[in-house]
Amino acid sequence: MTSTQTTRRTVLTSVAAAAAFGLATGTAEAQTPGRPPRGRQIGILLYDGFSLLDPTGPAELLSRLPDTTVTMIAEHRGPVRTDTKDVAVQADRSVAEVDRLDVLLVPGAGNRGTVGAMRNPVLLDWIRRIDRHTTWTTSVCTGALILGAAGLLRERATTYWASASYLETTFGVRYVPERYVRDGKIITAAGVSAGIDLALYLASLLEGEEIARGIQLAVEYDPRPPFDAGNAATASPELKELALRLLAESQV
Amino acid sequence: MTSTQTTRRTVLTSVAAAAAFGLATGTAEAQTPGRPPRGRQIGILLYDGFSLLDPTGPAELLSRLPDTTVTMIAEHRGPVRTDTKDVAVQADRSVAEVDRLDVLLVPGAGNRGTVGAMRNPVLLDWIRRIDRHTTWTTSVCTGALILGAAGLLRERATTYWASASYLETTFGVRYVPERYVRDGKIITAAGVSAGIDLALYLASLLEGEEIARGIQLAVEYDPRPPFDAGNAATASPELKELALRLLAESQV
Repeated sequence: MTSTQTTRRTVLTSVAAAAAFGLATGTAEAQTPGRPPRGRQIGILLYDGFSLLDPTGPAELLSRLPDTTVTMIAEHRGPVRTDTKDVAVQADRSVAEVDRLDVLLVPGAGNRGTVGAMRNPVLLDWIRRIDRHTTWTTSVCTGALILGAAGLLRERATTYWASASYLETTFGVRYVPERYVRDGKIITAAGVSAGIDLALYLASLLEGEEIARGIQLAVEYDPRPPFDAGNAATASPELKELALRLLAESQV
Repeated sequence: MTSTQTTRRTVLTSVAAAAAFGLATGTAEAQTPGRPPRGRQIGILLYDGFSLLDPTGPAELLSRLPDTTVTMIAEHRGPVRTDTKDVAVQADRSVAEVDRLDVLLVPGAGNRGTVGAMRNPVLLDWIRRIDRHTTWTTSVCTGALILGAAGLLRERATTYWASASYLETTFGVRYVPERYVRDGKIITAAGVSAGIDLALYLASLLEGEEIARGIQLAVEYDPRPPFDAGNAATASPELKELALRLLAESQV
């Protein structure tokens, strides 16, 4: 192991070699700080009790699209806390400040957060208003139930696996167990991590397949989970019960 | 499509049926709000210019572990902005407030953020101090270079694909192109999205394979990317160039 002192000196003298990261430092530094005021506007709705990966997975990928701004939006500006209360993401805009979006994404949450959003007329009215002008209105996980509560689901959708029958009985839409389901301009994604697959698909719709593939490599999305337990259709009842118990006990 | 009014009424009267989400409402509500003061402590270091998915993917999964708290930590409390400046995640603790962690995770960033952290003696000293008592010290993406700058890498590691040769020449460790690489108690993950695979592996080390599988199902991690472009070893030079250009141009 290199000694700490040597390592530090090496680092300090090697900053000039930062291009070795493979990232074109010159290009990045030549940019004007801050995003252009125009360009594609992608908005992600945060609300109390959302699940962290639902908005942040898609935001990571979609923020790599050319000439695109991703904005976290909530009923009020400020930090919005997740279902476990472990983490807060900043909402940079309130819904009152956002009239138009090219793409809207509604993430999912645990029970408390999902029901809270489904019963919040300010959020539902805003979702409906924004949807009038979007190119794509999208959801991840139980975000589909919130789109349903806003009256925006059509014939087919996906959602979190454990919410499938609730989706069908409450909104009269057919649950399709795919990673994402497009029905008109509404695209719903399955649970939590499916937002990443949705984001790649959305990137291809917005900028074509080559850019989407570039983004996939940019985030090294070559998934190799150490286990093969993420599919509810093949999971045992015991594993489903364990998954739901882990969720319930981690949520506050 | 159901009318908005009907949908809303349906939602309001169906809250009692929220158990249909599959999440045990009763159990969750019976919990005392807030995390227990004790339990396993997992800390994630944020710093200006980090890449959003690097900390949030693992945080989503690891926050589902029983009796575990995940805390976002930075040099100072408050919002910490990503490399694209699109999103800020709240740091709930400053490094000065955290003396011990069971698990430390250091996320990656673009050039600016990575070099900034590698040159920040406050962060490097804190990482070394925390590492003395951790069970696992981990990184995602170019977070490995920050562990290297802190003198903590040993013989083998992984990192973001474009940083592989920098890792080898600067720190004298062998780059292993796997999703995650364990070397002693140091576990490094490949780029950005690999943090999710790392988190599942880490969950299995901390709580056993059955809990890890439960977490995988809880976040429906059954990845099905629409393209197969996430592996640098098989990517064309043109796609690599495109990926790095999308990164450079999205960073500010």
